[in-house]
Amino acid sequence: MDFSSELRRQSDLVERGIDQYLPPADTRPSRLHEAMRYSLQAGGKRLRPVLVLAAAECLGAQSAAALPAAVAVECLHTYSLIHDDLPCMDNDDLRRGRPTAHRQFDEATALLAGDALLTHAFALLAERYASDPALSHTLICELAAAAGSRRLIGGQMEDLLAEKKAATADELEFIHLNKTAAMIEAALVMGGYVGAADSAAITTLRRAGSHLGLAFQIMDDVLDATADSATLGKTAGKDAKAGKSTFVSLHGLETSRRLARENSAAAGAALRELPGDTAFLVALVDSMAVRSS
Amino acid sequence: MDFSSELRRQSDLVERGIDQYLPPADTRPSRLHEAMRYSLQAGGKRLRPVLVLAAAECLGAQSAAALPAAVAVECLHTYSLIHDDLPCMDNDDLRRGRPTAHRQFDEATALLAGDALLTHAFALLAERYASDPALSHTLICELAAAAGSRRLIGGQMEDLLAEKKAATADELEFIHLNKTAAMIEAALVMGGYVGAADSAAITTLRRAGSHLGLAFQIMDDVLDATADSATLGKTAGKDAKAGKSTFVSLHGLETSRRLARENSAAAGAALRELPGDTAFLVALVDSMAVRSS
Repeated sequence: MDFSSELRRQSDLVERGIDQYLPPADTRPSRLHEAMRYSLQAGGKRLRPVLVLAAAECLGAQSAAALPAAVAVECLHTYSLIHDDLPCMDNDDLRRGRPTAHRQFDEATALLAGDALLTHAFALLAERYASDPALSHTLICELAAAAGSRRLIGGQMEDLLAEKKAATADELEFIHLNKTAAMIEAALVMGGYVGAADSAAITTLRRAGSHLGLAFQIMDDVLDATADSATLGKTAGKDAKAGKSTFVSLHGLETSRRLARENSAAAGAALRELPGDTAFLVALVDSMAVRSS
Repeated sequence: MDFSSELRRQSDLVERGIDQYLPPADTRPSRLHEAMRYSLQAGGKRLRPVLVLAAAECLGAQSAAALPAAVAVECLHTYSLIHDDLPCMDNDDLRRGRPTAHRQFDEATALLAGDALLTHAFALLAERYASDPALSHTLICELAAAAGSRRLIGGQMEDLLAEKKAATADELEFIHLNKTAAMIEAALVMGGYVGAADSAAITTLRRAGSHLGLAFQIMDDVLDATADSATLGKTAGKDAKAGKSTFVSLHGLETSRRLARENSAAAGAALRELPGDTAFLVALVDSMAVRSS
């Protein structure tokens, strides 16, 4: 297996799926649908949807069968970025090297485009798996739990509260397990469900996702502290400037790098337990932790 | 049937359902869960969830079977109000006679509480109808379509765009059919699905909901132009102040009142075609159009 060309194949599939499964840009009202596409088609590495495809393929499903779930996960992730970038949240002007949605359009349009992408994620899972209501139902349960007030949104809320006071290591772990790891975990698990994984495989995917999510977020903190904005495609060094607790501020650079490596290794070890060809999935996990942007 | 006591019984059931089906206020992070409950438990007339219960009961279902769907509809409606009240949207300080969510908490918390209620609506439909995945799937399809970028959110987007220029009668109808009628229609139809309605009954409920939604919104415009803030529990006269097109500005007060009556009558006539005891449902529809707040 050539990792780069396989990654390219899968992410190309995701791009086509996004184009196919989003309402056309000229759907009324066009400003809203343009904004949804502007943010969703901003590129990015498509890691979460590729995790969905890779987990499904590893368990023997066709990647096409997992594509609507992959696009739903990317819609969900993109909505969370749009809302996170808003002035009342992180107030960011730059995302993936381009103006954020509220800078390109306006705040109200960005707010509504985020709401619409969140809603569309569930619409996709309902409509595109209509021939298998039990699978559709399972996927929706998984996404709703990962994206809900106890996990993704709860993590964002605690993240905001942590800006006003120095977070403890426990609070930081809550934030990262929920703000970042929840959706990575859901991506792997949803791919597993499309691949008809048994409950042991689902448990394994969930554990791998949790470790991978932590590794990914720790590297995010390391990169925020060490890389420049041009490399990241978003504002660098803003955590330190905001006086915000991060893995780096709490544990130092070297320990953070070690924790990222350990969690990444634990994720890979878990995935190797799965039946099927795990080579691409394990290589993907390695690439997510060892990265420069 | 005593309409008032039956309405009280149904709305009390909704209140208990909301308390039962929302995460407890002390769930971590508590600020987020308090904000969700603050907005959802602000009272209001609970018209949409009562429509769900009434449609289901009319078709022979127990109202308890429709309660999760009713609460999901109210979660969805409340999220749309929270986001609509935000400074970048309508910038309202008052809702149901109390400070809006972003005034009581802050903008970021209100944004996230809205996101969480939207997500929770789908979680409820998925989790509480898990024993009947086909029904769960149908309910989620209906809610996602009604709440999506072509309907509820599309209507809000066009409503915002209409503030910058005088809307035509056609644009105003698009706004009202989607911003207001979509969720009223979904409430009746979801109740119908819980009551195992056949496709003819679903079509009838959809038509009734569309008429009722228009009647309700026209009366909203009439009340905005004629009532005071204390009676409405929200800021009155703001459409005229904003120079915004409404049914009243386009058609005048008398014609608007007549259009409201005609649409309300059409909704009632449609509902009388349903099998079952339609008395409460028809009385409810009448009460929604003929109102003072």
